[in-house]
Amino acid sequence: MSKILSRRDMDFILFEWLQVDALLDNQLYSEHDKETIQATIDLAELIATDYFQSANRVADQNEPVMMSSSEVALPDEIGTALAAFADAGLLSASQIAERGGMQLPFVVDRAAFAWLQAASPAISGYALLSAAAANLLFEHGSEYQIQKYAKPLLAGVDFGTMCLSEPQAGSSLGDIRMLAVADGKRFRLFGNKMWISGADHGLSRSITHLVLARTEVAAAGVKGLSLFIVPRDVEMDDGSVVHNDVVVAGLNHKMGQRGTVNAALNFGEGMYMPDGQSGAIGYMIGSEGAGLSLMFHMMNEARIGVGMSAAAIGYTGFLHAVDYSSSRIQGRKAGEVNSVAIIEHADVRRMLLIQKSYVEGALAFNLYCAKLVDEMRCSDGIVREEITLLLDILTPVAKAWPSQYCLDANSLAIQVYAGYGYTRDFPVEQFYRDNRLNAIHEGTNGIQALDLLGRKVSMQDGRALKILAARIKKSCDRGAEIGGEPSQHAAIVEEMLGAVASIVELLCAHDDRQAMLANATPFLDVFGHMVISWIWLEQIIACDGKAGDFYDGKRAAARYFRLWELPRATSQLKRLEEVDLTFIDTRPEWLCA
Amino acid sequence: MSKILSRRDMDFILFEWLQVDALLDNQLYSEHDKETIQATIDLAELIATDYFQSANRVADQNEPVMMSSSEVALPDEIGTALAAFADAGLLSASQIAERGGMQLPFVVDRAAFAWLQAASPAISGYALLSAAAANLLFEHGSEYQIQKYAKPLLAGVDFGTMCLSEPQAGSSLGDIRMLAVADGKRFRLFGNKMWISGADHGLSRSITHLVLARTEVAAAGVKGLSLFIVPRDVEMDDGSVVHNDVVVAGLNHKMGQRGTVNAALNFGEGMYMPDGQSGAIGYMIGSEGAGLSLMFHMMNEARIGVGMSAAAIGYTGFLHAVDYSSSRIQGRKAGEVNSVAIIEHADVRRMLLIQKSYVEGALAFNLYCAKLVDEMRCSDGIVREEITLLLDILTPVAKAWPSQYCLDANSLAIQVYAGYGYTRDFPVEQFYRDNRLNAIHEGTNGIQALDLLGRKVSMQDGRALKILAARIKKSCDRGAEIGGEPSQHAAIVEEMLGAVASIVELLCAHDDRQAMLANATPFLDVFGHMVISWIWLEQIIACDGKAGDFYDGKRAAARYFRLWELPRATSQLKRLEEVDLTFIDTRPEWLCA
Repeated sequence: MSKILSRRDMDFILFEWLQVDALLDNQLYSEHDKETIQATIDLAELIATDYFQSANRVADQNEPVMMSSSEVALPDEIGTALAAFADAGLLSASQIAERGGMQLPFVVDRAAFAWLQAASPAISGYALLSAAAANLLFEHGSEYQIQKYAKPLLAGVDFGTMCLSEPQAGSSLGDIRMLAVADGKRFRLFGNKMWISGADHGLSRSITHLVLARTEVAAAGVKGLSLFIVPRDVEMDDGSVVHNDVVVAGLNHKMGQRGTVNAALNFGEGMYMPDGQSGAIGYMIGSEGAGLSLMFHMMNEARIGVGMSAAAIGYTGFLHAVDYSSSRIQGRKAGEVNSVAIIEHADVRRMLLIQKSYVEGALAFNLYCAKLVDEMRCSDGIVREEITLLLDILTPVAKAWPSQYCLDANSLAIQVYAGYGYTRDFPVEQFYRDNRLNAIHEGTNGIQALDLLGRKVSMQDGRALKILAARIKKSCDRGAEIGGEPSQHAAIVEEMLGAVASIVELLCAHDDRQAMLANATPFLDVFGHMVISWIWLEQIIACDGKAGDFYDGKRAAARYFRLWELPRATSQLKRLEEVDLTFIDTRPEWLCA
Repeated sequence: MSKILSRRDMDFILFEWLQVDALLDNQLYSEHDKETIQATIDLAELIATDYFQSANRVADQNEPVMMSSSEVALPDEIGTALAAFADAGLLSASQIAERGGMQLPFVVDRAAFAWLQAASPAISGYALLSAAAANLLFEHGSEYQIQKYAKPLLAGVDFGTMCLSEPQAGSSLGDIRMLAVADGKRFRLFGNKMWISGADHGLSRSITHLVLARTEVAAAGVKGLSLFIVPRDVEMDDGSVVHNDVVVAGLNHKMGQRGTVNAALNFGEGMYMPDGQSGAIGYMIGSEGAGLSLMFHMMNEARIGVGMSAAAIGYTGFLHAVDYSSSRIQGRKAGEVNSVAIIEHADVRRMLLIQKSYVEGALAFNLYCAKLVDEMRCSDGIVREEITLLLDILTPVAKAWPSQYCLDANSLAIQVYAGYGYTRDFPVEQFYRDNRLNAIHEGTNGIQALDLLGRKVSMQDGRALKILAARIKKSCDRGAEIGGEPSQHAAIVEEMLGAVASIVELLCAHDDRQAMLANATPFLDVFGHMVISWIWLEQIIACDGKAGDFYDGKRAAARYFRLWELPRATSQLKRLEEVDLTFIDTRPEWLCA
């Protein structure tokens, strides 16, 4: 049985729960049948197993090195794995045929990609960014930009990056200083970017940087930002291709995810002079001042991708822990003589069940979000609008919840292995190091919390929350109908939904915005637990009437979540209701004393 | 201001709260005054700053290497740091004068040592083990063994190890196979040990291994274990010193704490033949079959040492995060124009306050435990008995609680640094990796939970718990007297104490031991939160009537703990009361399906 992901669970999620085959009735996906879907996932599993899994450790143990030429060297296995993935056409699995894609449902694309993410989050990162960059260009680029940049990205010929952060501006994008000076129809860019994943390498023909920068006369803050394509290798008017004026200033040496090169990039320092003068040549995407909203297209995709990566890393850790605990013999049950596999011990089962509830909950939820993209694609008018809003409100949860709880799952996987898990002879310590990144990048979880409470729950008079509440309510009604545990589970979810809705109402009416947002992170935590408990309700509803170990396992994980996790979340409701000010009332001097 | 530990807080704990100066009234410590105590801590701080802190990163980046001769090479900085520590006499600070010690209170010794643990947990590990080995020998060794082995350990001439685990027996010590064959008055040992910290190195003259092994005719299980001294360099009858038949079989490559060499050791393989035959020469300590109970002397000391290490690593992470967030400028407060230090943002203050409540709570608690050792030393009869029991019941908490929550604190420290914290350019990622070990070694936290619920709460008809309850009750009464927040805090602690006592009563009367122990880990978690909330109550009582940032900070951390942490803990009480069987009812097949 694969320790990358569980195919059985994926089949359950896709076909027994999400009924992805029903999507195939839509015109858009009518070329496919269930077999194509299975074949796509088979292919992803094969590439994950044959290329990504083995390269994962190599990439961890041989982190990127900057050569004297300021080029970046990586282990060959990374390029081989990515080439296998791109050659299989998986980079564009969900793209429409006219863009060169397979036109598969997005949820299938994400399910397939999850195998790569679980097998090597660091290596799959290049593909994630390249696909997201291509998608942004398809949506907002000119026809020329699509042909010139988007298509080679989707074909795996070029790789992409997103260049937002600067050394002084990580979360605070309004402080971006990168300058774009008009130079005919082109621009010349000057400045420094930080935390650029895939910043430089020899894995692709060129690198297509998508760069947020400020035009000369632009407004202050985020409104003055425009978005630019800055190809590392830029084609000049005479058709020659030269190195653009963008160079790696230094590599970031990370705790994990070492296979993804991450660096500071300097633009316009004159290290290369593409046409005799300094300044990185760039091309504006869309209109001036629209940079951040365009970039959000890519960021939202990347955020859901990060959440999926977190879920996938947690999941592979869980499967490793199950496997190890089934074969590691030690200790006895009370009163027995023979040693048993440690999975027999209550505390090990506890650790496994918690992991299961986190990772299966997170994977199911993130695939649910992916299916929303399909529902959106296949609808129009008000339905499309509603699904878009639903996806908007769920995005911070999709990013933050797995990156916290699936990291906890990875910690529990180490604990199951105990001493062995703390060594590099087993992969669980790498999973833990790799997953720690996900709460940080693509907007820290604190930023996600502000996005949820400060914007998403209240946008359009709380319309997104109402749409979500209606879906949750529908599941609760179904659970109540079934009776038994689904009904008990539904009752708690519904109660929690009511409490969350009241808190939102109360907070949105609050006149002090700082106070209103003071507990944004605990709010996100409670909200996330509500969402995941709903997803568990949905899963046990899909198990209704079905017998066997697999379904019993689902029910046990849901039970754990209901009995042990939800009380912890609801215990925080009172503080949120009271608009507790403990955090903002804590003066910096008290912390430094 | 030091980022290793806070001297201000340590002074508060030692003098304003624990009133350690009052200990000096005892005959045992009458040679000392407050100035000696301060001078001892000054010295520890100095050595931590000048030697341990700088060596900490070097040791992480240059992990131990096994040379062709099977000797282990380490960076020189480790030896230099440990020599500075031993030369200062700090290894035996709390030992009585006739053993060559300074005869300082144990709590002062631990407070001083905490500086070394915070500055470099991996390097201080050698000292921790050596002192613990010496203490065991002083208590249980023969006069000859004390002179020959204990004194050189305390002088830093030899270093010690504890050899318990074997590849097939980590938590399950009854399965130890190491064989000890009588050879005159000596023994010859044959077998393999695993996870031996300090297993081999060139840092000391010799290495004194304390080894659990089974004599030839011994009973099965733990009762058949005896304890042996196995010096790496053993003196023969003719006075010559030769290499004993014990060699490193392989190094363990760990995620963190890399400065502590950790290895598998092979005994009796004949690689060295000390007097012409194979078998590691060993000397029994105490009587045959008493091995485990003797080893527990060392293990209990090591467990509290591990908890202190966890608290210290968490604490240094907190101080680093406070420092970084005070100088890192980014973002604005709502409606303001100028950027601020990130410590001004509510979510950063939240992360700092949580860290503060964890790390100051854990440090204070572990120093409280250390002071109990002094109270024990200075008392006799029933008082001594009671303090011993109190220390017994608190030991699993002292080990497990900091190793979980101060690791969470280290994760929050990374989150405060965000991307920078995930890189090796800043030390917080090392703290996180280093601290992850503490939930595993010296008995996993799962083992601590079984120890607490399966043994400690019920021993002597629950006498230890009653003694603890009386102390807690006394603090609650004092809190109630003061009124205000101490009174509110006291009310919740007292309620929780009542709930915990009922659960213990209920569980101890349970007829199915497996069911009774099914939720041992959640019980330890709740019990630990009760204890730490009591310690926070004690601290704010000690702050009563005092004004200023330092005291306001203490009160804010206690408030956070009361308002946000305790509800999370109490939310789990219902499941414990119900003796919820979700975990043990989860069948292995459900997890593997």
